[in-house]
Formats: sequence, structure tokens, C-alpha cells
Amino acid sequence: MAAPHPDRLLPADPGVRGLARRLYEQVRELPIVSPHGHVDPRILRDDPPFADPASLFIQPDHYVTRLLHAGGVPLRELGVGEGPLPPDRARHAWRLLCANWHLLRGTPVRYWLESSLADVFGIIARPSAGNADDLYDRIASLLAAPSRRPRALLRQFTIDFLATTDDPADDLAAHRALRDDPAVTTTIAPTFRPDRYLAVDRPGWVADIKQLGGDAGDYAGFLATLADRRRYFIEHGAVSADHGAIDAGAEPLDRPDAERIYRAALAGTVTAAEATAFRRHMIFEMARMSCDDGLVMTLHPGIHRNHHPPTLAAFGPDTGHDIPVAAEFTRALQPLLGRFGTHPGFHLVLFTVDATVYSREIAPLAGFYPAVYAGAPWWFLDNPAEIRRYQQAVTEIAGFSRLSGFIDDTRAFCSIPARHDMSRRLDAGFLASLVAEHRLDEDEALDTLTALVTTQPRTVFKI
Amino acid sequence: MAAPHPDRLLPADPGVRGLARRLYEQVRELPIVSPHGHVDPRILRDDPPFADPASLFIQPDHYVTRLLHAGGVPLRELGVGEGPLPPDRARHAWRLLCANWHLLRGTPVRYWLESSLADVFGIIARPSAGNADDLYDRIASLLAAPSRRPRALLRQFTIDFLATTDDPADDLAAHRALRDDPAVTTTIAPTFRPDRYLAVDRPGWVADIKQLGGDAGDYAGFLATLADRRRYFIEHGAVSADHGAIDAGAEPLDRPDAERIYRAALAGTVTAAEATAFRRHMIFEMARMSCDDGLVMTLHPGIHRNHHPPTLAAFGPDTGHDIPVAAEFTRALQPLLGRFGTHPGFHLVLFTVDATVYSREIAPLAGFYPAVYAGAPWWFLDNPAEIRRYQQAVTEIAGFSRLSGFIDDTRAFCSIPARHDMSRRLDAGFLASLVAEHRLDEDEALDTLTALVTTQPRTVFKI
Amino acid sequence: MAAPHPDRLLPADPGVRGLARRLYEQVRELPIVSPHGHVDPRILRDDPPFADPASLFIQPDHYVTRLLHAGGVPLRELGVGEGPLPPDRARHAWRLLCANWHLLRGTPVRYWLESSLADVFGIIARPSAGNADDLYDRIASLLAAPSRRPRALLRQFTIDFLATTDDPADDLAAHRALRDDPAVTTTIAPTFRPDRYLAVDRPGWVADIKQLGGDAGDYAGFLATLADRRRYFIEHGAVSADHGAIDAGAEPLDRPDAERIYRAALAGTVTAAEATAFRRHMIFEMARMSCDDGLVMTLHPGIHRNHHPPTLAAFGPDTGHDIPVAAEFTRALQPLLGRFGTHPGFHLVLFTVDATVYSREIAPLAGFYPAVYAGAPWWFLDNPAEIRRYQQAVTEIAGFSRLSGFIDDTRAFCSIPARHDMSRRLDAGFLASLVAEHRLDEDEALDTLTALVTTQPRTVFKI
Repeated sequence: MAAPHPDRLLPADPGVRGLARRLYEQVRELPIVSPHGHVDPRILRDDPPFADPASLFIQPDHYVTRLLHAGGVPLRELGVGEGPLPPDRARHAWRLLCANWHLLRGTPVRYWLESSLADVFGIIARPSAGNADDLYDRIASLLAAPSRRPRALLRQFTIDFLATTDDPADDLAAHRALRDDPAVTTTIAPTFRPDRYLAVDRPGWVADIKQLGGDAGDYAGFLATLADRRRYFIEHGAVSADHGAIDAGAEPLDRPDAERIYRAALAGTVTAAEATAFRRHMIFEMARMSCDDGLVMTLHPGIHRNHHPPTLAAFGPDTGHDIPVAAEFTRALQPLLGRFGTHPGFHLVLFTVDATVYSREIAPLAGFYPAVYAGAPWWFLDNPAEIRRYQQAVTEIAGFSRLSGFIDDTRAFCSIPARHDMSRRLDAGFLASLVAEHRLDEDEALDTLTALVTTQPRTVFKI
Repeated sequence: MAAPHPDRLLPADPGVRGLARRLYEQVRELPIVSPHGHVDPRILRDDPPFADPASLFIQPDHYVTRLLHAGGVPLRELGVGEGPLPPDRARHAWRLLCANWHLLRGTPVRYWLESSLADVFGIIARPSAGNADDLYDRIASLLAAPSRRPRALLRQFTIDFLATTDDPADDLAAHRALRDDPAVTTTIAPTFRPDRYLAVDRPGWVADIKQLGGDAGDYAGFLATLADRRRYFIEHGAVSADHGAIDAGAEPLDRPDAERIYRAALAGTVTAAEATAFRRHMIFEMARMSCDDGLVMTLHPGIHRNHHPPTLAAFGPDTGHDIPVAAEFTRALQPLLGRFGTHPGFHLVLFTVDATVYSREIAPLAGFYPAVYAGAPWWFLDNPAEIRRYQQAVTEIAGFSRLSGFIDDTRAFCSIPARHDMSRRLDAGFLASLVAEHRLDEDEALDTLTALVTTQPRTVFKI
Repeated sequence: MAAPHPDRLLPADPGVRGLARRLYEQVRELPIVSPHGHVDPRILRDDPPFADPASLFIQPDHYVTRLLHAGGVPLRELGVGEGPLPPDRARHAWRLLCANWHLLRGTPVRYWLESSLADVFGIIARPSAGNADDLYDRIASLLAAPSRRPRALLRQFTIDFLATTDDPADDLAAHRALRDDPAVTTTIAPTFRPDRYLAVDRPGWVADIKQLGGDAGDYAGFLATLADRRRYFIEHGAVSADHGAIDAGAEPLDRPDAERIYRAALAGTVTAAEATAFRRHMIFEMARMSCDDGLVMTLHPGIHRNHHPPTLAAFGPDTGHDIPVAAEFTRALQPLLGRFGTHPGFHLVLFTVDATVYSREIAPLAGFYPAVYAGAPWWFLDNPAEIRRYQQAVTEIAGFSRLSGFIDDTRAFCSIPARHDMSRRLDAGFLASLVAEHRLDEDEALDTLTALVTTQPRTVFKI
């Protein structure tokens, strides 16, 4: 393996590639806007050196660990769900990744890792059982250097805006510290993620809502408490609220029904059907609050969480066995959009892991409602083939102006620039293909590409 | 912007493009057969000049208005749902289109408008806020010329056959006048579209069925009246009957059940479930009538109509917020095809806005039943990316002979040649790719392309 | 038409094609491993000459007959569902195929037939009404030659491993004879296909289970009988058990419920809902047995069998009117995978005719569970466009190591090498495109391609 090729991911046809390269060069170095992701703000506040290659590249990244697991590597040996590993176990996990490097062929995970290793650590050798220890030692020694600490990387990555994902009960102390620190030039914003408080039949829910700090003793108090926490998040820089239930349902209940179900939830007697109805009602209410307080609403339904119970029991959630199910937006969102779809300033960004809804539902909705934007391909779909399919399916129906711009949604800090770079390459390639087919002029392609990287995510997420 | 490029939409690879160009040249100028669309026959009978650029390109075309609306332009300012606008408002609407031209990038709407402007009005400047008034004036002055009247355009477009879409109660006076006018060389045929008469729980249904002119006082009379109206349409040149409910259901009721529900409908006591069952029963009956009278049956389910009630209330239907839902054909059509699928001469053309059913249901059905044809990509799918996907998905399973040929389905008169030209280019490109991969010989590709443009729509629609 | 082009199906771009050709050349002549198909083992045991071109290429191949039927050729004239035809009828069927050759344009059926005619019979003329008799005579005369007998072809096709599909009650005498015959160097393995014994409301079920030879007088005996028959199959070389119900349901019943439903089935009083629940329970039990006895489990749900009852009545099953329906795996398989998904040595290969589940469900499942493999595109999806879509959708999520390798699944003996060759060409083309985009090095591409053809099917199917 040599250094990552400058033309990687650009179209193979020489004519289109030349065009794509010209476009890409214009946006390659532009700063990153990352409106949704899962970086822990405390590593940016405290700026500790990363512990070791395993904790940086393997343990927190279920994209990596699930592929190794499918190939026969026990999650236990990778340190999944654990804190920092002792040095021998960290090295062992790294060796397993290198020895199983072939399992990643063809995946974006491989691409992100390769780019990160090259760009951050200068490593261009292909990982293998033979060089695992050498690579481990080189990365580990670099991790101790000031230039590889989180804040130094944040600067090198030229990230202008970075949103984290946060519990509504969070005191956002890390965000406050980052905002007040003049050495931090990146805007680091929290994101309001209330899912667990809207699932009223979840064990522990009654105790959890007390953590929100308001008086949630009745339904009115619950609404007021959530609205308060949203305000608190907005005061700390939040621009969006993020929602991810199993379906996209958003149907209001009559007030007495909402109150009744809320009482039943407090009493621990709520049924599953009532909890579902209440959750859908609350999504509607969250949209109403967004109309009031301006938080952009993001919605990403359709994941069956924790498909393998033994893995959940042993390693916790977010360990690689969340599996998509079919999504439906048209009917599910009709009540919400019928009410708020043209509300001035309301923004609803729709994500999916079910590619069938790009052309069938998301693009038609985004192609009429001023509120609706088509979120970038998410999670399992965050790869070149699906991004290309999404580009075609959505833009031919709704144009480019209804796209959210790229969302990295990552827990892997070092992969952020690689992911945005992949997106820029693919956008350049797609726009080049439109120019090559004489459907767009080159100046329009450049203008569109620049907007996708700069103004569009800022407009959609009100940054 | 220069004139539309002669190679636009052809494959980018130089070798394949050369082949595609050769194929395309052979069919480029062949007359148009348009078996399904929404042109108002009265403009062809009365041949008035088009009023202004807004009424020609904006007001009637929900493809255009929905994109502008999503981009923040109020439908009111575009004159949606209104008749001819006063000159200042027409000019204002046109300015809004030009100033928001970037919203159309990447869409077929842009392509159709560009082609229409160039081919019909000689305009090759890219519309913008800066040149909006100039373009308006140029188009407006040309609209007064005899050569831009509807009939003159019909001749210039070389349309051999044009089907309209008509209410079963229509007296078809316009069609009669057109048929009897020796100056009209295009065959202009009505299409029987009975949806509203089959929705027996629709407000106004009882009054509406009286407009049909028969004795619909009981179920037998209702059937007879519909059969009569079909005969009347056939006498006026109709070749097909068009059906578009929310689902593809086609299941017969027992006669007593049908009679009972019909009575309940007349009495205004029918339930929603009964109305659905009756509508599915009537689709079955429409197929039976097609077996008897020979009208080709077209079916395009899967649209959630009028998704945004405030827009419906303010601007009426067909204003850009009809949104697709998932479609299902295999089970829904089993009763109908089990009964009529091999009936000699019965033709059933299936359309969808749910691209998942191309390979899963439509092509397998069309690849067995002599009655079933795969309708061209419809509505939201009427764009290059989806047409290519459809070509691949359907032809690899069912071959080319089961395709309907292109359907423009448009309300935008000037876009008819641009839409057919887009289809011919894409067909040429797809066939060229098969030749380039040595899966088809060039003479076969040309024969297939010619059939798709000439004999195939005539065979499928019995023209 | 000339001889099949050496570059057919390789990517059109000259640079990528050169790369693809290099890769393809390395695997072109490697022996075939065919882990799932429908060849009748008796033709290999008895080695009779094939009767005539119709019985070789038309009668048993519903891919061919359904396309001709859709084009208007009655199945009766093709000898569908009949044994060997008298010479005049065989010739007539062949003439119909040749005269309707254009109906196959763009389909893989045409490709397979073309390849078979060229490779096995040296025929490179394009079939037509004009040369039908000549082609018939040439093929018929060659069929009498020893070199065109089934065993000779098996050798020429260099098939190392060939699995058939067999009824659990089969005595496997043909397989025993083939195994004991030193002249047969191909391993010919039976496959355990128990569907009809798991459908307890099927007419004839009570009589059929008696054919299994065990004591199926109660539920425990039924389980024991099935386990016995699996052992018998394993002793005769079986490596897998194959399951194809309408859905992928796999949910265990409590033992008393299973026993109760089994008794009702014996008594003929079982309801449709009970039978469905029992079938899903038995799929779960089949997985449990696979964990015990090691048979690879293959699952291919989602086919609505015998869609056209009159054709079923006249010609029997497997006559071209099995039509796909939407498939769902995530929820349906959760109980099974929650229990057995990480069981050492358990292999579950998932097939689909619903392409929407590649990226939504199959790849995410195969990308976590060590047990799950993504089966090759099946049936209607076994064509170049869908294979490319599958390659992209699955490998970007789960890598190459989770693919099953190619499955021909054919009843058409002569098409086996053509089908595997098509797959190798498409794999080479896809891998070449990854190299061209600098996502994979060429040595990795070659290694991957070789594995897909050699080690991977052997690993997945435990051959």
C-alpha cells in the first residue's frame, strides 16, 4: 500500500475524473461543519492524550468491532464496553484488527481508518499480523506528543463547528468550559436528545425524569420541564434536537389522553400501546416546541436496537447489533407536517437507514415542504455506493437545495476529516457526472458543491 | 449557458457515447405517440394563444411550483390554483422562477424547461433575476405569433397520437370537434378516468353519479351506466381507462355484498371499510369490462393525495403535495390476474412511484402474464436516474417487450417533446451500454429502440 | 452474431475493463463449486443422452418458458409440465423459442442460452425462425454423442462439487450410487429440503409424514424423525438444509403449544394461523438442529407461489408464476439469531428476491452475526444489474467475507458454467472498479476474487 491516492473515490472515466478533480480541489481544504456527531466534549475540555491505539480506533467504534465480530473475533478481546485497557490487552486488540484487516475490504470503515492512519499518524503501510506491533508502537509514541492531543487535532482538522449529542439532564459543564475558553476557536454545541425521557414504559423512566430538575409530577409539568431544558441547551449553544425512535410516528393525542397516559406512566401501569401513542404524541409536541424555540428537529427512525440480547447483557448498548427495519414517513409524519410543515423557520431533517424511502418519501416531502430537508445517508448507508444512490434519488426529485449537507455522526474522532473528505469527493464526482452529461454547467456545479460544504449545513442547522 | 448540448444525457464514456449517439440519431425525429397525459383538449380545439409565460410554464405545473414552494416561495405568488393572472402578477411569478432557477439544479424539471425554452422560444440564456424581464418579454411577444399557438405547436412537435384524461361524465365535445376537423392530423383521444365515481364514501358522490346520465339507482344500473360511458368514450376514440387509488387492491365481492354496499352508499351510511372493499371490487369489475370492451387498463396506485390540508384548502388539489407511499402489487392483483391475466387482448399497464416494486413485483408479473406491461417510470420517478434504474431492473427480468414505452403524463404542453426526447436519449444510452458489454448486437439495439418509440406504445395501448 | 465476446459483461470504461480482464483471467478456468441447485441426480447416475433440444433448454426451465408465455406463447405448446415430447412437438417448441428470440433481449436467460449454445454445441448463429430447424438438427445430432451425455458434460464443466435439492423422504439411492462410482469425480451432495413437511395444514401432510419412515405419531416423534432424516442426509454427503416459506418467521412456541398444534394437524383440525405459528416454530427448531448436526441452514423467503391458479391446475407448480413479495428479516429472525446467532459453527445463509433488504437488513445482520452470510442474488435477481447492486450494497456494509459466493440454483444443467462465468465476470468488474477508485489494491482484488470462487463457498457451506 502506498499513500492514499489523490484521486481516490473520484469517477473512473478519465474525462469525468478530471472534471471532478477540479471541483474537488476547490473545496478540499474548506473548514468542516459537523452538525451532528457523538464526540465526548470532555475530551476536548480536558485534552488528555488518547490512551492507546485500541481506545482511539477500536473500542468506541462499533463500525469496526461489528465487522471483526462477524469475522469471528470475540468482542471481549476487543475491549468493547470497557474503559481503558491494560497495555497488553490494548496491544492484543490492535493485533486482532491488523491481522483481520482483510475483513474490512470494500467498506468505508477501511477507508476511514486508512485515511486517519495516513493523515494523522503518517502510516501508509497496510496493517497485517506482521506489522501490527510496529504500527502499535509508532501510534502509541505519537499519541503522547502534544500535536496528537484532542485539541491539537481539532485545530488540524479545521473543524469550525462541532455538535455533540447530550442527555437533556446534562449540566453541559464541558460545553460551558469550552465556550469560555478563548483557546478553543471551534464552536462546540450540545444537541438535545430526549429519546429516553419520551419512552414512558422504559424501566427507570420515573427515576430518570426526576433528573431533569423540573416538576414533572404531571403532564403539564413534564412539558414545561422539557421546554426548560431545551432553553438551557439553547443558552449553551444548541442548534438542534435529535430524535430516534423505532418509527417516525408523530400523531397528537387529545390533552386528556396525554394526561391520563402520563399518570399511568408515573404509576407504572402504562401499557406498551399507550407508551407508543404517547411517544408519537411527544414527537408532535417536540415539533411544536421547535416552532417556538427554533431548535432544528432531526429525526432518524427505523433501528431495531440491541438485536442480540446476550451481547447487550455482556457489553452494553451501541455494540454493533442495532439492525435497520423498514421505514415509513409519508403517513407517519402527515399530522406533524400538516400542522407545522410550512411554519416559518421550522426545520425538520429526515434521516433513514432504509434506502427505499429516498425517492419514495423523503425527496417528495423535501420537494414540497419548506420545513423538510433530506438528511445525509446515515449509519449503514454512509458509504460511497449509497451516497451515490442518495445523490441521484434525492436531487432528481428535490434538487440540491433540500439536502442537509454532510453529517458524520461519528464516535471516532480521528475519522471526522476522512468522512467529510469522502463526502466532498463523492459530491464532486456526482456533480462532475452531471456536467459530463451536459445537465449542469461547470460554474453551477462548483457553486453547488461549495454550498453543500459551507452555507447549506449552516442554513439547515441554523449555525 | 449555451444551447442544449447535442450529447446531453448520453453516457459519459466516449466509446459508449458514440454508440448511443448513433442509436439516438435514428429515432430522434420520429413522431411522438403519447398514450397518457393531461393536456386540456379545449386548448387544441379553440387554439387560443397562451396567455403569458406564467400560465404556460408555471401555474399548471406542480413539478415547478412545488420546488419553488419548498425553496420558500409562497404558492399564492405563483398563481397556483388560479386562472389567468393579471400581467403584473404573471410577470412577478415568472421573476420568481428565474430568480430561483438554482433550486431546479439536477432535476428533470430544469431539463424540460431548458429544452422547451430553447426549442420553442429560441432562448438559451440561463434564467436569473437579471434577465427575467427580458425573457418574459421575449416569450410573451412570441406567444402572440400564430406559430406558437397550441395547434401550431402540436404540428411542430410531430405528435401523432395524444391521449387526454377525462371525466366519465364529460360529453367529449372537444374531442368530437377535433376528430371532425380535417385540419387536425394528430389523433386526440380521450381517456376514461372513473376514480371519483368508484369512491363511494366521497362527499358529493351521490350527486356526481347522476351526472353520468344513466340510471344508477341500484348496483346493476351503476354497472350498466359505467359500461355505457366506456362505450361512449370508445366511440370517441378512447383506447384506455385509467385508475389511481391509494392501493392496487382488486378483489371481487359477492354480488349481494356489492349490492348492499352500493345501497348504503346511496343512503349515505357506507363505512370507510365498505367503501374500500367496494372500490377494490370495482377495479376487478373494470378489468372485466376491459376484457369485454377492449379498453386498455392502466393502474397507478400508491399516492397519498393532498398531504398538506392547508394547501388543499387554499389552492385546491394537484398542487404539489401528493406524496408516495409503499406499493404492493403481487397480493393485491392476484384475484384480478388469476381471473383475467391470460384473457386474450386484456392489457394491464402497471405504474408505480415506489421503485422497490420494479424488480420485486412488476417485472416478475410482466414476465409471466401476457396481460401485464411495465408502465414507464411515473411522476417522481420520471427522471434520468430512476429511468436508468427501471430500465435495468425491468428488462433484466422481463426483457424489453414488456415495457409500455414512454408515457409523458404531463400537464405542461411545451414539455411533451422534451420529455419524449429525454426518454429516447436514455433508452439509446441504456441500449448502447448493453452493446458495449457485448450483451446485444447493435442491429438488435436499434431494432429495440425503434420499437420502443414506434410500435411498442401502439401495441400496448392498441393505437 | 459472432462467438460470445471475450470481454462481455466487463465494465465499458477501457481502463477499468483492462483491469477487470486481468482479474477475470486468473479465475476463469477454476473449477466450479455449486452448493445449491436443482439438477436431478438420476440423470448423472444413469447418464442417458438428453432427449432433444426442447427437453434440454425449454421444458424444465421456467426462466425461458415464462418469458415466452408473457410474449403470447401458450405453455402447452412448449411442453411445460410434460415428460419427453414426441419429435414433432419438441421441434415445434424449439421453433417457438427461436422465432421469439427477441423476447429474451437484455435478460440473463438470453446470455445463458447463448453461452450454452456456443460452449456446448458450437452454435454461434443467432436463433431465429429461419434457422430454427437447422439449429435443432445440429443440437439433436450432437446430443447422441457420448461427449454430450450428462457425465461427460459434468467433467467438461469442471464441477468439483454439486448439490442437488431433495425430499427428506428420498432414499438417496442415486446419490449413493454416484458416491460409490469411482468414475464420478465430482462430489454430488443431496440437500435436505423439508418445507412440505413443515406446512402442517397442507392437504396430504398427514400421509406425507408417514413417508419419512419414523414414528411421527406425536410431536416428539416428529422432531426425532426429522433429526433422523437429517442424519441420513448427512451420511449421504449433505452439507445444507434449505428452507423457503412465504416469510422468514422463526419464533419458538412453548412446548405444550407445539404439541397441541401438532395433534390438531394430525386430526385435520389445525387452523391456518396455527399452521403458520408451527412453521415458524419449526424454522427455529431447524436452526437448533443445525447447531447440533452442523448442516448449513439456507433461508429464502418471500415468494408467492403459483400466482395463476389456472396455470397451476393445467401445468403444475414451478411453471413461471411464482411472484415475489416484500421480505422482512430483522424482526422475523430476531428470536432465532438472539438464540443461535453466535453459536460456534452455525451457518445461516439468507437469500432474497426483495432487493430492498440487501442494505437494510441482510448486510447489517451479516455484518455482526458470525452465523449469517449474505446469499448470492437469487432467482429474479440473478442478473447483471442486480448482482452489481448487491455487490455494492452488501460489501460496503459487511465486506466481502460475509458473501456466500455464487449460487446457481438452476434446473438447466447446461447453464451451470454460463452462470458461474457470469458471476466471475461481474465480480472481476466490481473489484476492478474498486481498484480504479483506489479503494483496494490490485493484489487484494485478486485475492478476494479467488476466495469468492474457491475458498469462500467451501467455508460457508462446509464443503
